Amino acid sequence: MTDTLTPTTVAFADRHGVEYALPDAAADAQVRADDRAHVFHSWSAQKQIDPLPVAGGDGATFWDYSGKRYLDFSSQLVNLNLGHQHPDLVAAIQNQAGRLATIQPAMASDVRGELARRIAGVAPGDLERVFFTNGGADANEFAVRMARRVTGRRTVLAAYRSYHGGSGTPIALTGDPRRWANEPGDPSVKHFFGPYLYRSAFSATTETEETRRALEHLENVIVLEGASTIAAIVLETIVGTNGVLVPPPGYLPGVRALCDKYGIVYIADEVMVGFGRTGHWFAVDGFDVTPDLITFAKGVNSGYVPLGGVIISERIASFFDDVVFPGGLTYSGHPLACAAGIATFEVFERDGILERVRDLGSRVVEPTVRGWLERHPSLGEVRGSGLFWALELVRDRDTREPLVPFNATGADAAPMGEVAAACKVAGLWPFMHFNRMHIAPPLVISEEDLVRGLAIIDDALTVADRYAR
Amino acid sequence: MTDTLTPTTVAFADRHGVEYALPDAAADAQVRADDRAHVFHSWSAQKQIDPLPVAGGDGATFWDYSGKRYLDFSSQLVNLNLGHQHPDLVAAIQNQAGRLATIQPAMASDVRGELARRIAGVAPGDLERVFFTNGGADANEFAVRMARRVTGRRTVLAAYRSYHGGSGTPIALTGDPRRWANEPGDPSVKHFFGPYLYRSAFSATTETEETRRALEHLENVIVLEGASTIAAIVLETIVGTNGVLVPPPGYLPGVRALCDKYGIVYIADEVMVGFGRTGHWFAVDGFDVTPDLITFAKGVNSGYVPLGGVIISERIASFFDDVVFPGGLTYSGHPLACAAGIATFEVFERDGILERVRDLGSRVVEPTVRGWLERHPSLGEVRGSGLFWALELVRDRDTREPLVPFNATGADAAPMGEVAAACKVAGLWPFMHFNRMHIAPPLVISEEDLVRGLAIIDDALTVADRYAR
Ligand SMILES: Cc1ncc(COP(=O)(O)O)c(C=O)c1O
Ligand SMILES: Cc1ncc(COP(=O)(O)O)c(C=O)c1O
Repeated sequence: MTDTLTPTTVAFADRHGVEYALPDAAADAQVRADDRAHVFHSWSAQKQIDPLPVAGGDGATFWDYSGKRYLDFSSQLVNLNLGHQHPDLVAAIQNQAGRLATIQPAMASDVRGELARRIAGVAPGDLERVFFTNGGADANEFAVRMARRVTGRRTVLAAYRSYHGGSGTPIALTGDPRRWANEPGDPSVKHFFGPYLYRSAFSATTETEETRRALEHLENVIVLEGASTIAAIVLETIVGTNGVLVPPPGYLPGVRALCDKYGIVYIADEVMVGFGRTGHWFAVDGFDVTPDLITFAKGVNSGYVPLGGVIISERIASFFDDVVFPGGLTYSGHPLACAAGIATFEVFERDGILERVRDLGSRVVEPTVRGWLERHPSLGEVRGSGLFWALELVRDRDTREPLVPFNATGADAAPMGEVAAACKVAGLWPFMHFNRMHIAPPLVISEEDLVRGLAIIDDALTVADRYAR
Repeated sequence: MTDTLTPTTVAFADRHGVEYALPDAAADAQVRADDRAHVFHSWSAQKQIDPLPVAGGDGATFWDYSGKRYLDFSSQLVNLNLGHQHPDLVAAIQNQAGRLATIQPAMASDVRGELARRIAGVAPGDLERVFFTNGGADANEFAVRMARRVTGRRTVLAAYRSYHGGSGTPIALTGDPRRWANEPGDPSVKHFFGPYLYRSAFSATTETEETRRALEHLENVIVLEGASTIAAIVLETIVGTNGVLVPPPGYLPGVRALCDKYGIVYIADEVMVGFGRTGHWFAVDGFDVTPDLITFAKGVNSGYVPLGGVIISERIASFFDDVVFPGGLTYSGHPLACAAGIATFEVFERDGILERVRDLGSRVVEPTVRGWLERHPSLGEVRGSGLFWALELVRDRDTREPLVPFNATGADAAPMGEVAAACKVAGLWPFMHFNRMHIAPPLVISEEDLVRGLAIIDDALTVADRYAR
């Protein structure tokens, strides 16, 4: 198989024996027509988008109906941790579909119980019970609800640079511009500044300073919002879409200490970074802290079937021993989704996925992207962990002026659009956000494809360099 | 196969060839242990529940690990419209899992486009575009968001007797007690009284009176809340969990007229009643009205894979041609879920499911339950449509005092618990809510099983009769 199939018809079969005869202009046209006429797309002005029809995928690659293949360096929405069409996950779903596709949350189910047990087994501290949801947004929704019920308080603090989901409460928790169009939202949510040394909100110049000042700031917010009113602090362990912001040493333990001091529930949103993205089951494992609640989705089963959830500490779970937990969803703990989650555990353990991510991250990605700093004037900073990295693109390394303005659209965003286009032409599907490109391929990507993808990005950065002073 | 397997080991295979050797006390114990130790359940005090481990299901029946079989007269959570393990849905999931389990919402997908086209094809009026979600709650969440954005208004009206979902905005829309523990919720949601002749909020004694007064009441609420502030009215077409309340003739057209008069978006919540429950694709088809937005979930694919969505009129969809719709979810339009949705359409059309529901409803269920009124003094009223009926149980037919108080728990709720227990002992899984039992079997139930299930309920009602004066 070549990366880009020639425009004459090429027949090939993926590892499941599914056959493709591409290009298939008729299928492409049908998919486009149905999509444009009947599918309403998220976060978009409907006439200003042109969704790519995808014909198939395998591992770190997917392809369109022209036969063009893309290395998926965004893992779809950073959910496809085990890549496209992983044979174990596919088999688990097919098998469970044949056994018992669904059963309501009020019943006990073998796969639901087993997945909960497995998750509890790798979760830190005494986080032993799991409330399943359909995705990440509702996980955050119900985590906040637990915190409010347990503390009897209402205010929730979240970071400005954050995304916590599209529905009611999570979009109010979200700090990024997707919240703006949804204001006024939950009036009890307040935002604070997290650590981000490259663009410090605290005029810090060292990690130690950033940690100390960010914690002072957070404590000031707690005290002045009224510590006794605050139910929870919600934090992405490593801020995902808003920048792959890795907290400096001491920050998360400091947050934990503030939560303890003021009786606040610490909710770690690990929807994007949980289940291996950083080379740990949970990103908190890399920072030696135990939150009270961890929310997850995406990587738990690579999104093969919608699934999310909240992992609950004993203190909080036992509060609800005799008090009704006031929340639920028809598809909570869906057997098909749970079966794919169990298969995920089996693959992670058998194939040493966590070790692999740490190895590829530190041996391949980190040295490569750090090396680019010497050659690409548009590269302001690189940062990350495991198979999760951000390239921060700037016009000027001294002033750190971003390559495109915050939340730019249209012509203002053009330089980033050109970088993305260069990647796509060369056969790589990138993850772009504001003035950043993120590197987030499936955790099963071959070293060869990883190196090849990085080379494509290396080339594409020359497009950004033209805008840099 | 007998209904209740004898407690000696019985091996049997379901129609997919899956083999069961039951009873299986070891499996039962393992499922119970995992569930109690690690699964956190919705809407419950965790120590006060004892979830039944389910081993398998087929059609209108499911069974536990003792080999005891239950006729599923609740269709799980009234989502399992095509029954357990329908071969066409199972095959569609298995096939799609092998082709392409998932692809992000920003891409175009053949199955997503086809399902959207099929839904648009049966939706009333010019509801031609579909925004997919993971379930019913987020469908309502995003429908309200569309209405607010399009109208530039914020207030939303919903009925007291209603359930719209467990997450942020939908639980605020919900009228029933599940909202109470979540107050204060969205301050822009206000509740009104819908028609319910048996317990009229308007002292009406005829349907005509109920319709007229309920519409007058709704218009009063609109005018005094401020018509120019009201974005949407959200209404279950037939109120589901809160009573199978079938609107009297003229009510829904009256709501439509009020919405037109005041520029309000009419959102029909068809999460429970859509996709065949009442013998129509959508329950609104039985009332000759076209809402601006229809929300759906459950029946669209019988919940085999989490799926929900909003069907959007052209007026609202085209508003977002050049304006960004500010919402989304990672799993919007999930291919696996959509494939099961397409199979649902094929089964409905091939097997004449809608005609079947209307036939069984009017020929079997309706005469049977109406006949019970003569024999069961505890039966205050029966009402319904298609395969969706409520039995309203009372202590006294004259005063209409309910068999148990509104929202009763513990000892107060005991009489209803006894009725439910009688059903379960006899091998039927009932849907109970407050002082009502609902009849909502899978739409594929055989006539024989339907008759047998009704006979079990008939018997169980004698338990209720003992409390009736
Ligand atoms: C950190 C984080 N939290 C929550 C969510 C919301 O998850 P979902 O889209 O499944 O609702 C996302 C999605 O990208 C996320 O990245
Ligand atoms: C009428 C109605 N709307 C919305 C919902 C919420 O659906 P889900 O539980 O899938 O979020 C339900 C669930 O029972 C419902 O009956």
